Amino acid sequence: AIVAGVAARFAPGPLAGKRVLLTAGPTREFLDPVRFISNPSTGKMGLALAHAARALGASVTVVLGPVGAVDRAGLEVVDVVSAEDMAREVLGRVGEADVFIATAAVSDWRPETRAAQKVKKGAASGPETLKLVRTPDVLAEASRKVAGQARRPVLVGFAAETERVLEHAREKLERKGLDAIVANDVTAPGAGFGTDTNRVTVLTRAGSPRELQGTKDAVARGILELLLVEQRPANG
Amino acid sequence: AIVAGVAARFAPGPLAGKRVLLTAGPTREFLDPVRFISNPSTGKMGLALAHAARALGASVTVVLGPVGAVDRAGLEVVDVVSAEDMAREVLGRVGEADVFIATAAVSDWRPETRAAQKVKKGAASGPETLKLVRTPDVLAEASRKVAGQARRPVLVGFAAETERVLEHAREKLERKGLDAIVANDVTAPGAGFGTDTNRVTVLTRAGSPRELQGTKDAVARGILELLLVEQRPANG
Repeated sequence: AIVAGVAARFAPGPLAGKRVLLTAGPTREFLDPVRFISNPSTGKMGLALAHAARALGASVTVVLGPVGAVDRAGLEVVDVVSAEDMAREVLGRVGEADVFIATAAVSDWRPETRAAQKVKKGAASGPETLKLVRTPDVLAEASRKVAGQARRPVLVGFAAETERVLEHAREKLERKGLDAIVANDVTAPGAGFGTDTNRVTVLTRAGSPRELQGTKDAVARGILELLLVEQRPANG
Repeated sequence: AIVAGVAARFAPGPLAGKRVLLTAGPTREFLDPVRFISNPSTGKMGLALAHAARALGASVTVVLGPVGAVDRAGLEVVDVVSAEDMAREVLGRVGEADVFIATAAVSDWRPETRAAQKVKKGAASGPETLKLVRTPDVLAEASRKVAGQARRPVLVGFAAETERVLEHAREKLERKGLDAIVANDVTAPGAGFGTDTNRVTVLTRAGSPRELQGTKDAVARGILELLLVEQRPANG
């Protein structure tokens, strides 16, 4: 990683001088000190994109939800737990970014209240209810925040879907004002949460859908080439 | 691990010939294909106990909830996701065990229903409710299952608490018919979920509480020495 860092400094890649901001991993929404709502995201796809962007010369900041030990070399990592934390850290940085890529699997809901002590099971055996409220939509809020800027960052979303994948992804692209969205059927074999491979479709506002498949590292490079490098002059 | 395995075979330790069954890690209770209720358990304390028991000569089976990469060398590991899975795998094995140690942080509730497709956020922004039902109490069911056996396994529970720790642990010990319980204030510094150290109090039916503190490996050895080795003749 040190060698890659030095190489990036002396032989600037196509993203040299660019600031790339990413979110990665899940969020956790606690209902008491020991229980939360979350999802199986391991942050692999987001970290693969972060390292790929670094290798292309960008300076990279990752706002990272709770994941196990991961390779942080060469990256600025901001650790967060909840969707609210993630939104705050992203909104404080997105205005300065050249590219914002939202790969995190942000919880859409959180428990309305968080008990100060572990909730005991008590005697009741019947159904209980947990009141949920919506969390901030990190990507939509980031998009709104930069909408009026003269130099707005390129905005890339991810759509982890289980059905009507392209339709849901296209709808997100439009509604959140994105430049591109990476659609992912998380139920497909060799794709989705925790796997080392992925199979995605990249949708842009104008171009036709492009499919990418392979290791998450290869897919990460493919996404960056497609969205950030191909449009630029080779020796720009 | 191979060396340790060979050593254990040729120089039987104090637990040689004993079958130790453990649970470790969290469980995940899904509400749709991508969202679940869980807790921050990483399985470290349970796996430390599993390896310590193996080093003392036992053959060890771990029923393991979803955790990251862990050292499985020398252990039989049964991977599970939900409390229901864990209960099934434990109840099928506990009758044959000499010792059952329940370290897993089993979810006490699960969503009443699990949607076949990812639940979309929809347009509503007000509170929504998630109906929860109780999961099987793995340790209590295991205890009931072996209660009538001529050679009942030694039953050891864990109590992860955030307040009135010893009182809650003592109540669990009695209610679930255990031989010992390891009480753990998960909010104390250097204790609880994801840390490499722990500070616990071991309660038995008769003896006075004993405190253990140190790395999870050292605490694991201490617990086994205290509960399984000290009572036996040294060269039994």
